[in-house]
Amino acid sequence: MPAVEITPAEAARFLLSRDDFCFLTHAFPDGDTLGGAGALCAVTRSLGKRANVYCPDPVPAKFAGLVPPEMPSRAECLVAVDLADLKLAGEVGARAAGHVALCVDHHISNSRYSERLCCDPGASAACEVIFDIIKCLGVEPDAFTVNALYTGIATDTGCFRYSNTTAKTHRVAADLADLGADVAGINRAMFETKSRGRLELEKAALETMEYFFGGRCAVLSLPLALLNKTGCDAGEIEGITALPRVPEGVLAGVTIREKPPGGVYKVSVRTNAPLSAPEICAEFGGGGHLRAAGCEMRGSLAEVKEALIGAVGRRLGDAL
Amino acid sequence: MPAVEITPAEAARFLLSRDDFCFLTHAFPDGDTLGGAGALCAVTRSLGKRANVYCPDPVPAKFAGLVPPEMPSRAECLVAVDLADLKLAGEVGARAAGHVALCVDHHISNSRYSERLCCDPGASAACEVIFDIIKCLGVEPDAFTVNALYTGIATDTGCFRYSNTTAKTHRVAADLADLGADVAGINRAMFETKSRGRLELEKAALETMEYFFGGRCAVLSLPLALLNKTGCDAGEIEGITALPRVPEGVLAGVTIREKPPGGVYKVSVRTNAPLSAPEICAEFGGGGHLRAAGCEMRGSLAEVKEALIGAVGRRLGDAL
Repeated sequence: MPAVEITPAEAARFLLSRDDFCFLTHAFPDGDTLGGAGALCAVTRSLGKRANVYCPDPVPAKFAGLVPPEMPSRAECLVAVDLADLKLAGEVGARAAGHVALCVDHHISNSRYSERLCCDPGASAACEVIFDIIKCLGVEPDAFTVNALYTGIATDTGCFRYSNTTAKTHRVAADLADLGADVAGINRAMFETKSRGRLELEKAALETMEYFFGGRCAVLSLPLALLNKTGCDAGEIEGITALPRVPEGVLAGVTIREKPPGGVYKVSVRTNAPLSAPEICAEFGGGGHLRAAGCEMRGSLAEVKEALIGAVGRRLGDAL
Repeated sequence: MPAVEITPAEAARFLLSRDDFCFLTHAFPDGDTLGGAGALCAVTRSLGKRANVYCPDPVPAKFAGLVPPEMPSRAECLVAVDLADLKLAGEVGARAAGHVALCVDHHISNSRYSERLCCDPGASAACEVIFDIIKCLGVEPDAFTVNALYTGIATDTGCFRYSNTTAKTHRVAADLADLGADVAGINRAMFETKSRGRLELEKAALETMEYFFGGRCAVLSLPLALLNKTGCDAGEIEGITALPRVPEGVLAGVTIREKPPGGVYKVSVRTNAPLSAPEICAEFGGGGHLRAAGCEMRGSLAEVKEALIGAVGRRLGDAL
């Protein structure tokens, strides 16, 4: 039974009709899934309901403030946030199949696994959709909620840099600033401030950068040994995936990052027009957004790299 | 005779009353001064007037598109853009003393050297003020103008990251997006894409990073030899000044950059609260914004560094 598509107003009415929520994020959590789940949790609690956030992975330190403290709850109503497919929520996702009452999302690739789906593929972030839902709820969002929503939008747009940023994105940001969002503080924490370990990782990653196809493809290789040396957490490592798309002329920037305990690689592909990132990742069972996608691969680092370069080469051949 | 303060509407009426303009930028030009001058030049030309942009320094490659092609003009009316003081426009500034009919600015430190001054210290960028002026002119800005204004605002706010970003800044960005600004393209060119030389410079600069006062001050040293090796132009080097404020815990990030032919240093100081950047730079005759200021110093690199560390140390002592 495919999901029934609902509007933000209908999603608000649905939330008003239930009393006990679990807001489920995706694995490898980012600012949007955690900020969105945190904001919905805080807002439903402010309406006198019980609610918690469930994240399948440890919450990276920089996002720790987005998750409200646990409260006793029976979690009768499961709501997925920014979760395009249940397989992106690990084991919990498998157990949740058939039990997700609502999904709030912005991925065009959403697999429609939930009973109700409130998804705007034109929104920069799930938090942009959630801002609309909260307006329909008619509650004045508190400082926690406003900051959580701003964090989600800012992180999913690379601070209003990426092509998913629209006029509406800026208007929502303006409204959140008027509502008291700590814009400068959040931006500093999310984008400007980096641990010394993260800076070391950047320097080391830049040293691994290799160019292929006359500079149109750049690849970063991050074996476990290198990652462990810098002591960076998952959130800090995640940010590094923007790096290989930085050099002028690059159409596909690939980051290959070994996962503990080893032998499995989390691959991130960022592209510039006209290359499609999910088309490259689809060869390896992955997916994502038009210019930012991912997949998981097994083998030696050399094998994984070779397979990815081959896939990029085929797409470059098609595109150019 | 100090400047007469005027509103954007009055500035618009003044521009309508004259026919031949020279829009003067500051030296070491950035996206805001060039974007603002370029936008005013394009808009006054669209009103049938003659206008050119004059920049005291070579225009960095990444900003080349902000300056309209030269047209024959007698430049009867000199308008300064984003120019806090005439000494920031080099020799041309000295010759312009007493001849600047209007200055459009957003620096609280504006030295009021012009006949008329349209300055909003609450604006993120001169381009934010200029957007208001253009609205008052009642002309529909063309694509060139819209992109120039967006570039100025995006670059002066670090793409909406810095503490000068307000709700109004986001609303102006939304209006410019609605007017057709190439938001994603400009952001990619200004913030994401870097030449391989610039990436080399970042790697080399990170290797020079030194920490003082328990990590509360970080210093980058960029001697000419290092700068020449990377082949970066002034615009590319300018961006590096954000780097020493990046490490967690840093309150003052200092970049010392040797100017050709050598022996003179352009110093950039970026701070986090509670440190004031212009207070540090004032010890050496410089100034700027609350969290980003600069000065010029002479001597050996070691002497300059020692003097700056001393100044930072005194401010840290006062502040903490």
